[in-house]
Parts: sequence; C-alpha cells; structure tokens
Amino acid sequence: MLGGAAVHFALAASFFDEVSVVGPVGEDFDEHHLEAMRSRGVLVHDVERVAGGETFFWRGEYGWDLNSRKTLETRLGVFEGFQPKLSERSRGSEVLFLANIQPALQLQVREQLPDARFVALDSMNLWIDIARDELVEAIQSVDCLILNDAELRQLTGKPNLVSAAREILSWGPPTPPAPSVIGAEQNRAEGRRGPSVIVAKQGEYGAALVTNDGFFALPAYPLETVIDPTGAGDTFAGGFVGYIAAHAEEELSDELLRRAMAHGTALASFNVEQFGTERIERLTGEEISARVQELSEITRFIGAPLARLRG
Amino acid sequence: MLGGAAVHFALAASFFDEVSVVGPVGEDFDEHHLEAMRSRGVLVHDVERVAGGETFFWRGEYGWDLNSRKTLETRLGVFEGFQPKLSERSRGSEVLFLANIQPALQLQVREQLPDARFVALDSMNLWIDIARDELVEAIQSVDCLILNDAELRQLTGKPNLVSAAREILSWGPPTPPAPSVIGAEQNRAEGRRGPSVIVAKQGEYGAALVTNDGFFALPAYPLETVIDPTGAGDTFAGGFVGYIAAHAEEELSDELLRRAMAHGTALASFNVEQFGTERIERLTGEEISARVQELSEITRFIGAPLARLRG
Repeated sequence: MLGGAAVHFALAASFFDEVSVVGPVGEDFDEHHLEAMRSRGVLVHDVERVAGGETFFWRGEYGWDLNSRKTLETRLGVFEGFQPKLSERSRGSEVLFLANIQPALQLQVREQLPDARFVALDSMNLWIDIARDELVEAIQSVDCLILNDAELRQLTGKPNLVSAAREILSWGPPTPPAPSVIGAEQNRAEGRRGPSVIVAKQGEYGAALVTNDGFFALPAYPLETVIDPTGAGDTFAGGFVGYIAAHAEEELSDELLRRAMAHGTALASFNVEQFGTERIERLTGEEISARVQELSEITRFIGAPLARLRG
Repeated sequence: MLGGAAVHFALAASFFDEVSVVGPVGEDFDEHHLEAMRSRGVLVHDVERVAGGETFFWRGEYGWDLNSRKTLETRLGVFEGFQPKLSERSRGSEVLFLANIQPALQLQVREQLPDARFVALDSMNLWIDIARDELVEAIQSVDCLILNDAELRQLTGKPNLVSAAREILSWGPPTPPAPSVIGAEQNRAEGRRGPSVIVAKQGEYGAALVTNDGFFALPAYPLETVIDPTGAGDTFAGGFVGYIAAHAEEELSDELLRRAMAHGTALASFNVEQFGTERIERLTGEEISARVQELSEITRFIGAPLARLRG
C-alpha cells in the first residue's frame, strides 16, 4: 500500500504548512496515491515519474510486541540512479526535510537549497554501515538530526544517549550560539555547519530532544491498539518539522522545539492506529490539538515540596 | 558489594518514612553493611542472621549500552528454606513492599500484615516462568504491581503495555472504585482484592503508571554517565512507595501517584551514578528535591493552540 518516508512526512506536515515533495516514482505508481497527497494540499510537481521504472518497494515483518522489525524485501527501483532536480518553487523553500535515503542523494538535494533556514535529516543504520563518511558530511550540512536512539549510539560509538547527542552537537560550530533559525543562518554565513538540534526517536517510548541548551523527553501517546508502526518516525518528523515551519517567524527556542515535539508525537500516534496512511488521510486539526492537550495531561506532575524528607 | 532489592529499597525509602527490613543474611554478612542501613534510620531487627549460612549473592554482566543484563551467577544461600517471621513492630506497618523473591515467600509476608493499607509487589520473569500461579495469587493480594514493561507483557500475554496493565487491573475488584488508600481498605473489607495501580519500569526510558483513572509516563533523568544500573528498579520502588507512605493521610489519587513516580525516578537516577549503594548512602534530601524539580522542567511543554492548522 501507499507508504514511504516522503509520503508519511508530507501528509503529516501538510497540517502545518505547504509541503512540496521531491522524489521518483515508477510507471506502476497509481495516480490516486498522488491524489491522496494533493487533497491535503501537498505539491507534487517535483515527483518525477520514471518511464518504465518501478516504484520503491518495502516489505517487512514486525515482532510480537511491534518493537522489532525485520525487512523482508527492499526494491530500490527508481531510486537507483535517481538525480534529484528541484523546481525553482521548491528551491525557494525555507525549511527542508531530507528523508531517509542514500546520504549522497540527501546532499544533492541539500545543495539545491543553500539558503534554507532550517534543515532536518533522517537516516538509518544501513547508511551508518555502508556510507558513514557521506552520512557524516550530510549531517554536518543540516541544523537538526532526527534518528532512532540506537542509531545515534551506533553512529557515535557512544553507549549513552546524552553523550551520543552531545558528540553530534560538537560536530557543529566550535562555539555554538543559542540555537535559533537566525543563528543557523549566521553559522552558514560564517562557514560554520552542523546540527544544533538532535531528536532521538525511541519507538513506543516516545522521543527525546537534546540541544546545547537542554534536554526534553516526551513519552509516546498510550494506545491500547497499535495496528501498523510503519511510517511512525516519518510522521513524527512531519509534525515536528511542519510545526517549526509554521512558526518560522519565532526564534527556534527550546520552548518552540518542545511544542514541535508534542505535535510530532501526536501525529505519529494517529499514524499507527491504522494501516499505511489511512488514519492520517482522514485526520483533522481538531483531533491533533486535542491529542497534544492529552499529551500535556499525561506528562504533568506537580513537584510539590516534600513534607517529610529525612536526610 | 552490598546490594539486594531490600537494601536498595530501604535506603531509598528511608528518605520518606521509617523502614523496617525483613530478610535473611548469612554468617558472612559484614556488620558494617547493617550499619549503612542503620545510619539512614532503617530498622534491621527483622534481618535474620542464619548461623552457618551464606548471604544471597548475584553476579551479572551488562551489555554495551547497559540495556541488557546477563546473570552470571545467583546463589540463593540463606533464602533457601527461609521462613519469614515478622516482629510485632513490623507487623504493625501500614505500608508494605514485597521485593522480588519467590512468590510463596511474598505471600507468607503478606499474610502477616493483613491490615496494611498499601501493599506493592515487584517480581521478575523467572517467577513468571516457573511459578506463575503463585505469582498471580501474590499479585491479587496487593494494591500495586511494579514490574518491567517486558515482564508485564510476558505475564499477561498481551503485547501492548496499556492492554497488559488493564488486564492486570481487571484481576482486581469487579467494579473498581477510585483508587485510594481508603478504597483499598474497603476492597479488602468486602473481600475484593487485586491491584489498582500498575507501574511499568522501562529502564533508561523511565516509567509509566496505569490506573483505572488514567495514564502517566515520566522519562528517566538524563545522565551522561551511568556507572551501575544494578538496583535502579528497587531504588525507584523505594522512592515511589516511600513517598506514598509519607503521604498516607492523603487520598491515593493519580496526582499523588504521579508525584511518587517523580520521586522514585529521581532516587533511581542517583543510584546509577555510582556502584552499589555508594551514591544513595551519601545522598541528601535537598538533592532529591532539586532533581524532582529538574524532572518537572525537562518534561514540561506548553500545549499552545496552533495558529496555522490546515485541515
């Protein structure tokens, strides 16, 4: 069924801002899949249909508790030999998300938007294994890295999540300014690069945010029935990056990033309620806001002073 | 070095209330270990020294990222054939924690405190494997079950945490009242038993709380250096149950349970900073309160309304 990182991301982000998707599909790609995106206002003019090509295909199997996933089949199809060429309209975007694919392709897209104000990147263990140098180069060209926590550990060789994130933050500017969209722009102007925002995806446990200013963690929204975790990470990224894009006039403070995390978490929780993109396609803004409110409620406690502390 | 569930629990709980430890030690047990507990006000008159016996001993190995643990050696020692006999003073306790051990032993202790107002129980996969019926009986005799999330799944056969917790809640009273200390007492008076509070320990991801009234989750406190996770779960339980004991006059509301979770989480985070009980032995109440405050800060976000929700 319809899936793929860019699709999940675009549908989620479409609740917050105008999204333009870049990527190839094959001759087999059904027109009504494009319609699913168009009907949420997603621009698909940079979706390249490759004559005679076959659309990327993935098939996998989840473990009993959905915490482990085994890939059964991956067919790169039209992604082999793909040369992204962005339209002028897409090149004018202020915010860019580089979904998981070969780091070389991510860099090719990144180079076509040198002036983007906020760039985020997702990746996976495969590229750490077989293309680490290119991946590090790609990461050093962005403002925000979104990765599974185990992959952050693998990438840095640091067993501790906070240490791993700090290691990647150190790949950035030597004296990092307070992370802000403005700051990121300045870094690039001064030839300084590298992420100032690290998001660790933790599957059913939620997600954590590490910046030079602090740490934030949010549990996943508790669901009694999870149908299909496929695309949850990209849907999270769509909510997270989309929220930031919609608030581009605000300083990129930890406070803004935390709200973005909450919206990403809410979007991801809807995604897993049904197969593929079924749930997000019929989602409403009211449902998102209500779930963000619920997330706020299930994480709130009052740090009341201790009446009887002994010692 | 000094360890064991009861020791970690007692030291943590000693910050909140008077704690009396019940359990056997061997002739090899060093007097200065008892002193470590005494100096935190822990009552050790129910620690039974078995002539010629050998103290329980555990040795294990942690994986690279400390998320997996392999037991290398367990010597039950004096726990084999142990018959707990509580002093009159201990039998008068209002709050009871049954640390992880054979469920039959937990039941023997439980039966000696029939009027306890709040009883919590911890266990592990071993007892689910080899003594499930006894374990279920023990769980049905308590108000609160504290278990690793994977063990909650194993115990119930339900792959989803929320479903697993709800399953165990359903082992309790048929029409569960709002969970309160008073309520629990009433349940027993009416012959209704079973937990109304489920705590899922999630290791480095924190802990979640499920009651009939709601759900709460709290991440672990982020540490850049974790030295020794041994006893973190029992230290958590000590902070959690200790906090409840210190507020026994309050209704056992979700709000109180959430504050207890925060204190358990704070205590556990100190425990892993050094080996064994080193850190907790020199911990202060001020440090605990400061960390609870920090936990409140790293989980807070503002559910601001969305200015630009599209759809």
